[in-house]
Amino acid sequence: MGKEKYRVAILGATGAVGTRMIQQLEQSTIPVGEIRLLASARSAGKTLSFNGKSIVVEEARPESFDGIDLVLASAGGSNSARLLPEAVKRGAVCVDNTSYFRMNDQVPLVVPEVNEKDLAWHHGIIANPNCSTIQMVMALEPVRQKYGLTRVIVSTYQAAGGAGQSAIDELETESQAYLNRDSEKVTPAILPVKGDTHHYQLAFNLLPQIDVFEADGYTHEEWKMIHETKKIMLGDKNSPEIKVTATCVRVPVSVGHGESVWFEVADQQKPTIAQLHQSMAAFPGLVVVDDPASQLYPQPKTAEGRRETFVGRVRPDLETPGAYNLWIVADNLLKGAAWNSVQIAERLVADDLVRVPEGSAALFATE
Amino acid sequence: MGKEKYRVAILGATGAVGTRMIQQLEQSTIPVGEIRLLASARSAGKTLSFNGKSIVVEEARPESFDGIDLVLASAGGSNSARLLPEAVKRGAVCVDNTSYFRMNDQVPLVVPEVNEKDLAWHHGIIANPNCSTIQMVMALEPVRQKYGLTRVIVSTYQAAGGAGQSAIDELETESQAYLNRDSEKVTPAILPVKGDTHHYQLAFNLLPQIDVFEADGYTHEEWKMIHETKKIMLGDKNSPEIKVTATCVRVPVSVGHGESVWFEVADQQKPTIAQLHQSMAAFPGLVVVDDPASQLYPQPKTAEGRRETFVGRVRPDLETPGAYNLWIVADNLLKGAAWNSVQIAERLVADDLVRVPEGSAALFATE
Repeated sequence: MGKEKYRVAILGATGAVGTRMIQQLEQSTIPVGEIRLLASARSAGKTLSFNGKSIVVEEARPESFDGIDLVLASAGGSNSARLLPEAVKRGAVCVDNTSYFRMNDQVPLVVPEVNEKDLAWHHGIIANPNCSTIQMVMALEPVRQKYGLTRVIVSTYQAAGGAGQSAIDELETESQAYLNRDSEKVTPAILPVKGDTHHYQLAFNLLPQIDVFEADGYTHEEWKMIHETKKIMLGDKNSPEIKVTATCVRVPVSVGHGESVWFEVADQQKPTIAQLHQSMAAFPGLVVVDDPASQLYPQPKTAEGRRETFVGRVRPDLETPGAYNLWIVADNLLKGAAWNSVQIAERLVADDLVRVPEGSAALFATE
Repeated sequence: MGKEKYRVAILGATGAVGTRMIQQLEQSTIPVGEIRLLASARSAGKTLSFNGKSIVVEEARPESFDGIDLVLASAGGSNSARLLPEAVKRGAVCVDNTSYFRMNDQVPLVVPEVNEKDLAWHHGIIANPNCSTIQMVMALEPVRQKYGLTRVIVSTYQAAGGAGQSAIDELETESQAYLNRDSEKVTPAILPVKGDTHHYQLAFNLLPQIDVFEADGYTHEEWKMIHETKKIMLGDKNSPEIKVTATCVRVPVSVGHGESVWFEVADQQKPTIAQLHQSMAAFPGLVVVDDPASQLYPQPKTAEGRRETFVGRVRPDLETPGAYNLWIVADNLLKGAAWNSVQIAERLVADDLVRVPEGSAALFATE
C-alpha cells in the first residue's frame, strides 16, 4: 500500500528540464505532500512556484534529502554521482535524468510504455534514458513486439534545448545576429558541447557533434543511442539481437527532436504499412501522424509542449523487403526528459515501489 | 577544335541559382564572347552585371536563343520543357538544372567528377542532377570505384535555398517573427513546396517533405535521390546493383545541405577508415574534413560559397562489417546547382562538345 502523500525533491529545479519537471509534477497523479526545490549555490535563493505556492530554491546538499520519499534529478552527471547515493542512503527513491547511472547493471533504464517491468528490481535509483533514445524506442517497440526487430539505422535532428536553456539562449542570440548580418559579433561558448574545446555557431547551421567524441569516432550521444536502446528493449546493453547504429546532428531548432529511422523486421511475413500503423496507433503514448496526401507528418513545432511521441512517413524500403523508413518527433524536454521522469515516478507510486530495498545504499557508496 | 569565343545564354538569370551561374561563369575557364540574360516577363528589364558590364535581362522567348552556343537553364521545369527544345533546334547546347529532362534516356545526367564520359553522347541537352544527389555521389563515387557499393541509406538536412531565394526570404522573415515572439503574424506561403496545398513554418522547425508526395509515400525528392544516383553512377536509373533509399528533410538553414549516409561496400576486404579517407582525398572536388579529436567536421556555414563537397565523420558500423556511416556537406547552390552546371559547360568546351548532333531537335520536339 502506498503513502497518502509523497515528499518530493527536484534536483536541478531551475534548469530547462527542472522547470518542466515542476510543471509535469503539478499535472501528475502523484499526491505531493511536500516539495523541495534544489539547485547549485548559484541558483539558491531564487523563487519558483509549485501549485501556486512560492518555493525558495535551496542549495543541494546531502542533508537536503532528509525526510524525502522521491527525488527527480536533472542537474548534470557529476551532481547525480555525488548526491543521489546520499539520497538513497536517506531512504529516497531517485529518478535520474543524467547519463551517470544509465549503464549501471543495478539501475533500471526505463521508458514506462516499453519496460515498466524493470521498475520492480530497482535499488533506489532509476535512470531516465537519453532524449533521442526515448522517442526512438517509443516508435519501434510496437514494431518489435509484433514483428521483431533486427536492425536500426538512425539519423537524428536534435534541438538546442537538449543541451539546456543556455544552448537555446545561444541559438536565439546567434539567430538575431545572423538576421542583422552581424554573426561575427557573437562568439559561441556553449554548443556543440559546453565542456569541449571548440564552439561553433548553430544558427542557420548544422553541427554533427552531440556530446564528446569516443575513440572509435562515434560521439558519446551516438554511443548512448546504441547501448541504451539495447538495455531498454532487450535488458542487455550489449545484446547483438538488434543491430543499432546512429548519427547525431544538432539542428537550429529550440525544442523538439526529429529522427529519420531505417529499420528491418525479423518476421518473414513482412507487415504492410497499414499493419505497422495499427500496431503503432495502439501503443500508449505514441501518435501516428501520417497522411502524405494531406501533407500531414510530425513536426517539432506541433510536438512542442506535448507528452506524446509522434511518428509518420512510414514507408517500405522499395528495394529491401522487410525494411522500412519512418520519421519520429517528440518534445525532447518532456517525453525526452521531464515527463518521462515524472511518468516513472507516477508508476513507482502506482506500483507501490517508492521504497529503497535494504542494502541498496552500499551498491552506490562512493569511496 | 573548339571556338574562340562562346555565346552564352542564362535562362532564369535573376534567381538564386541564376545569379550564381553568372558568378561561376565569370570565374570559369570558358571564353565568353556574348552573354544573354533571360528570365520571365516579370523580371525582364532588370539590370545585372557580367564581368563588370551591365546587362539588361530580357524576357525568354524561342528567338532569344538565335545565335547562342550554350544555354545554362534554371527557371523551373515547365520553362525548360517549353524553351530548351527551341534552343536545341537553333543549335544551342543546353545544360539544364531543372528535373524535367533528367530521366530522359536521350539526356546525360552528369556530375563531371563521376561521369564526364556521358557528355560524349549528348543530343543537345545535358541535365544537372538534383542538389542532394550531386553531393552524395561525389562522396560515394571514390568508394564505389575502389571497393564497390551495394547499398546506400541517406537522410538529408536540406537548406531552404534549394527551394529558391523566396524560400530563404521566407525562412528569414519567419525567424525574425519567432525571435520577436510574433510567429502567428507570419503566414508561410512557399515552403515546404510552393505549389502544394499546405505551407508550414520552417524557422526553428523541421519539415520532412521536399517536393510533392508520390503514391508510394516517398516524396519526389527522395525518388530523385534513388533514381538519379543509379543513372549517374551506373548509367541505368533502375539498376538493382546499388540499393538506395532516402529520407529528405528541410532544415532551417539558408544555404548548405547536410547528409547522413550509411553505406555498404561489396569488397570482402573491408576497407579501413584510413583507406576510405585516402580514396576520398584523392578524388577531385572532394575534401575530407574528419578529425574528431580536433572537433573538425563539415558544416554548412563553412561550406557556403565553396565549390567543393566536404565529407567527414567517416566511421565503421560497429555491428555490420563492411558498412560505414559518414556526413556530407556542400553548398547546394554551387556544387548542387550553379557550379556543377558551369563545370559541365567547361568540360563541354574543353572536350569540343559544344555542338548539337544532327537529328537531335526531333528527339525533344513537342507536339
